[in-house]
Amino acid sequence: MQIIQANNYNVEIGNLMESSFSKLLSEYSDVKKLILVDENTQEHCLSYLITSFDELSDAEVVVLPAGEENKQLGIVGNVWEMLTEYGITRHDLLINLGGGMISDMGGFIASCYKRGFPFVNIPTSLLSMVDASIGGKTGVNLGHFKNQIGVFNNPIALYIDKSFLATLPDHEIKSGYAEMIKHGLIHNAELFDRVMEMMRTNPNEIDVQLLMDCIQVKNSVVTQDPTEKGLRKILNFGHTFGHAIEGHWMERGGMTHGHAVAIGMVMEAKLSELRRMISSQEYDKIENAIIQQYEMPSYSDTDIDAMIALMSNDKKNISETVRTCLLDTIGKCSFDHVIGNAEMKEVFRFFQKN
Amino acid sequence: MQIIQANNYNVEIGNLMESSFSKLLSEYSDVKKLILVDENTQEHCLSYLITSFDELSDAEVVVLPAGEENKQLGIVGNVWEMLTEYGITRHDLLINLGGGMISDMGGFIASCYKRGFPFVNIPTSLLSMVDASIGGKTGVNLGHFKNQIGVFNNPIALYIDKSFLATLPDHEIKSGYAEMIKHGLIHNAELFDRVMEMMRTNPNEIDVQLLMDCIQVKNSVVTQDPTEKGLRKILNFGHTFGHAIEGHWMERGGMTHGHAVAIGMVMEAKLSELRRMISSQEYDKIENAIIQQYEMPSYSDTDIDAMIALMSNDKKNISETVRTCLLDTIGKCSFDHVIGNAEMKEVFRFFQKN
Repeated sequence: MQIIQANNYNVEIGNLMESSFSKLLSEYSDVKKLILVDENTQEHCLSYLITSFDELSDAEVVVLPAGEENKQLGIVGNVWEMLTEYGITRHDLLINLGGGMISDMGGFIASCYKRGFPFVNIPTSLLSMVDASIGGKTGVNLGHFKNQIGVFNNPIALYIDKSFLATLPDHEIKSGYAEMIKHGLIHNAELFDRVMEMMRTNPNEIDVQLLMDCIQVKNSVVTQDPTEKGLRKILNFGHTFGHAIEGHWMERGGMTHGHAVAIGMVMEAKLSELRRMISSQEYDKIENAIIQQYEMPSYSDTDIDAMIALMSNDKKNISETVRTCLLDTIGKCSFDHVIGNAEMKEVFRFFQKN
Repeated sequence: MQIIQANNYNVEIGNLMESSFSKLLSEYSDVKKLILVDENTQEHCLSYLITSFDELSDAEVVVLPAGEENKQLGIVGNVWEMLTEYGITRHDLLINLGGGMISDMGGFIASCYKRGFPFVNIPTSLLSMVDASIGGKTGVNLGHFKNQIGVFNNPIALYIDKSFLATLPDHEIKSGYAEMIKHGLIHNAELFDRVMEMMRTNPNEIDVQLLMDCIQVKNSVVTQDPTEKGLRKILNFGHTFGHAIEGHWMERGGMTHGHAVAIGMVMEAKLSELRRMISSQEYDKIENAIIQQYEMPSYSDTDIDAMIALMSNDKKNISETVRTCLLDTIGKCSFDHVIGNAEMKEVFRFFQKN
């Protein structure tokens, strides 16, 4: 079992059966346990958890509809009503078993119900293992605005067991890789090369050390700046354009978060090149590596206008100016660069297919 | 200007025009200001605020429908959509101008919008000045369950100007006195006598020193235990029965929070006497003082059953046992006393009118 110290809790990486989870459950033996899943983790992960831990045999299970379009306040409200019916108190325990949507929504549900009760994250997707479940961001979307409503709050424990990855379809694995690529690009050029290499050669047999190194990048940044006053903003690299793309694509069948962020990273790398912060060689290396793995989508001029409108309402903005992260080099990122609509349009146009 | 140091912010008591509010606004001159009011404070307090501070001349004003029945998640959701439309970012400023409902809802709105942006409380009701606006509790009701959804979070500043009290009807002043009575009963027997004396003689010309002393009790408790792990629970004296009464009365035209808490305090004092924690003399003193000011409501056996059901879902409970505060003497309170349905029924029956 590998252990990374986070803000007031531990991240344990390894076989869940050998982790401290069992001990934690015995400490909570007198209270109610709730397990939050979505339709996918209900089917693929829940029975493993319940049959492996006796203390969970009488846990209440709350099932959310799968899909980013259901990460909405109305559904959180329904769950709060359910918890009230179950008589859940602030001493009970919530276990979030699922991907980023489950840890985001479950963390928010637990953080606000009776002003907060404890929760544990057991991420089942790669995206959630390397990113979403770490760092205390919780929340839901408001219409198309991603994570518009939420709070910063940490789980009491986080268990990462890569055996859950076997339950994932390939596009979900790919989605997780995008955040790993990001961790390399913003913090460690050598990590970027290792992630791309693994993705090209054996994406489904991800190396535990690589997983650890990616988690370390995320954890190191968020423990230094838990509420995103400064440094933490570098984790948004690829997300200014990425969130707008993901939000806009919701209406047309959806795009995975990682796919949108991967495209966002190429666009923000292009912007870094246009501003002469990185060289053309560096840009080409990034573009070639990423576009080989993630298809650049087609979009019209109308789509561009809609995406620019979404970017203008991003959480990271100060008084209506749009700010983004840009690369100083591969492995180093800076934040709070103000960008204008003309520049956004230039970048979107550059990647527009005829 | 009197200043009390709270958790990471100051409580200033005195004329708002002479407080640090003007300086604070100048520090926020570059960002959007939002003022949250309800229909009452829109009518009676808003123009004073806007005309007194130039920096607020172009503030957006959000008006909520008045009344506890509107302290609901759906309304908070509407406000979040409004803030999104206004393009509010996490660097902007919310000013809560109103009673406890406004500071509770506004605090929650600001705490969760884009994972939190700063807010200031300017309480306009006595209840809010001595209680609700202090201590970081924010939230909304979920159906009949009071403050079921919320977070702990503090304003960046709190300004108490008693001139706003002139805008209040008498029953609202009375509602505020109930929490002042509570501060005396749980912490300071002499303060209890002073509060009752002022209430009997000149309730509308409340003494600033008395206001200060009551705020000090609340502030001292919440700074010692901000998230209610232990000591802070004594502030719930009167609220186990009081919340059930208030919740139950919602359907029949409503009862002020203070009125319900005053009745709840008499009931919990009765329970303290039944358990021989306080003497009959002490109990009689409390009952006589409070019942003279707050009418004991009439209720049926069916009402009793409904109120007991509400008490079973109180936030303070651990694994379905109902816990309450009881008095050790006038001026001292203890918490986490487990009470059963038979005892609740006995107390409700004692005060039942034929």
